[in-house]
Amino acid sequence: MKKILITGISGFVGGYCVEHFTSHDNNIEIHGISRSKPAWDYVKGSPEILNSHHFHIADLNDIPKIKSLITEIQPDYILHLAAQSSVAESWKTPVSSFMNNTNIFLNIIDTVRLIDNGARVLSVGSSEQYGIVSQENLPLSEDQPLRPSNPYAVARVAQEQLAGIYATGYGLDICCTRSFNHCGPGQTDRFVISALVKQFVRIARNLQEPVIHIGNGAIVRDFVDVHDVVEAYRMLLTQGKRGEVYNICSGKGRSINEIISLLSDMYQINVQVHQEQSQMRPIDNPRIIGSYQKIQNDIGWKPRISFEESLKSMYEYWDSHIVREKLPHQEEKQ
Amino acid sequence: MKKILITGISGFVGGYCVEHFTSHDNNIEIHGISRSKPAWDYVKGSPEILNSHHFHIADLNDIPKIKSLITEIQPDYILHLAAQSSVAESWKTPVSSFMNNTNIFLNIIDTVRLIDNGARVLSVGSSEQYGIVSQENLPLSEDQPLRPSNPYAVARVAQEQLAGIYATGYGLDICCTRSFNHCGPGQTDRFVISALVKQFVRIARNLQEPVIHIGNGAIVRDFVDVHDVVEAYRMLLTQGKRGEVYNICSGKGRSINEIISLLSDMYQINVQVHQEQSQMRPIDNPRIIGSYQKIQNDIGWKPRISFEESLKSMYEYWDSHIVREKLPHQEEKQ
Repeated sequence: MKKILITGISGFVGGYCVEHFTSHDNNIEIHGISRSKPAWDYVKGSPEILNSHHFHIADLNDIPKIKSLITEIQPDYILHLAAQSSVAESWKTPVSSFMNNTNIFLNIIDTVRLIDNGARVLSVGSSEQYGIVSQENLPLSEDQPLRPSNPYAVARVAQEQLAGIYATGYGLDICCTRSFNHCGPGQTDRFVISALVKQFVRIARNLQEPVIHIGNGAIVRDFVDVHDVVEAYRMLLTQGKRGEVYNICSGKGRSINEIISLLSDMYQINVQVHQEQSQMRPIDNPRIIGSYQKIQNDIGWKPRISFEESLKSMYEYWDSHIVREKLPHQEEKQ
Repeated sequence: MKKILITGISGFVGGYCVEHFTSHDNNIEIHGISRSKPAWDYVKGSPEILNSHHFHIADLNDIPKIKSLITEIQPDYILHLAAQSSVAESWKTPVSSFMNNTNIFLNIIDTVRLIDNGARVLSVGSSEQYGIVSQENLPLSEDQPLRPSNPYAVARVAQEQLAGIYATGYGLDICCTRSFNHCGPGQTDRFVISALVKQFVRIARNLQEPVIHIGNGAIVRDFVDVHDVVEAYRMLLTQGKRGEVYNICSGKGRSINEIISLLSDMYQINVQVHQEQSQMRPIDNPRIIGSYQKIQNDIGWKPRISFEESLKSMYEYWDSHIVREKLPHQEEKQ
């Protein structure tokens, strides 16, 4: 039986990994590390699924604890999901963003170097690493230069460069991703697409005026469904080439304004858009679209879930999870 | 009176900065932060020079302490020298290297962001940031891509990228260097050139067999005298362009083997060269040579001290500092 250690298992992607990995391989022992116990409300078989695996509560900045845990587990695979992955948050707390992206990853791989058990590591990175890119370089292939333009992106570039040093300098078996924007049911509304869908559900239920509040509506991102993402992670863990970096993306770019129009059409809801200055960031990448040619060529992965399907499942998620609230003006009247 | 805060003041370059800055400007108040009190044995007027300035003992990883110190000092300038600047050490203790390069710098600039006093920051970086380079790209100009190939270099690239984000995203007044290999009297023999000169002095004094022990003799580096370096730092602090990065280098490349021949000729000492496998590094940059055209164009700095002068002053330093020792075989006989 092979053992896999998943860091940041309690997060959004962690739940989908547990669901996907267990459904694909009965012969795998899953260990998870996280700062808090998982509370997935979108994972099939949850919370019972927790009982069939091993969950360890630890802060990845606690080096002695992490060393003793990894030494004890002796994982064959490590899937490093743990991250502080919000760009907006990284502008507010850049030191924390750096510690909880770069430093935690370094603690993991340095432990693998020291225990020297040949574990295969998948380092999850971000499309934000590309930074501001020219229109003619879209869709982005992995050989494009990295010009990180926010604290989160700098932390991710440093992570990938450390992965490269550990692969070439110390011979660790590491493979990296640059994962593009995720979407899917259960994603927190701190991320733009989930926040948008949630607002549509609230409007449909008459819990909110038909006004959508956003940051910069013109920015274009490449959204990939979390189900496709975790399939890519599973495949890369066994088939990804050592030392290589792979985009995980849909290959399509959509602006925030386009997504609002699409949701408006899908659910026949007319909305006004209000752009909040407070949600604008100091620097923002105007357009990010990836190419998945390399991962398709190397291991045969490609995205399978359409964007409309993703939106639909997210809508259903919020629709079943939103507790009935009152309109602000109703509160005022009371 | 302007106030300057120098981090890592107790180090090799710190002593030269104090000497140089005080000799150029009577109207400057110097504050130094370091983990230990300075013990420069090469600074003119040392140790009395210590009494005319302010030295603070602190670990730059201690965020609350650093915040309170900088808030109290309210420096007009910050010269960030503090670093764990040995490539060899970074291969042995990569986590410590990262913490004591990238994280400490981030702690400094994030404090400046929060206290928002408009301090001008000079971020000292390294030629190692360039990594493995092609012969046709030499001498390296600042627009060359960065391909860091050791843990130290990755930490320095992350530092510079963070500096860029803080300059463009938060409006901090930061300027960066990529400083090439230093040389000069007082440099520890953990650095190759100082180790070479020290060995020649020991051989001349009959304290060592005429065998020079080195790592890879073929690697080429660009050595710049520490006196020239601190002059560049003083000029960049007031004249360097905000957000820009400047090479500080001699523009000339010399292999370790060439330096041995040069010392051999200068001091009429014949030596054998012994290449130690244990001192070879997992990955080594074969040739690094910089161009100082940008800094010369922008602020008029260029190196003034010849390499032979540097070697001579280093030889004199070791000659006056080496305590009379016994030959290893003499010890064995006792």
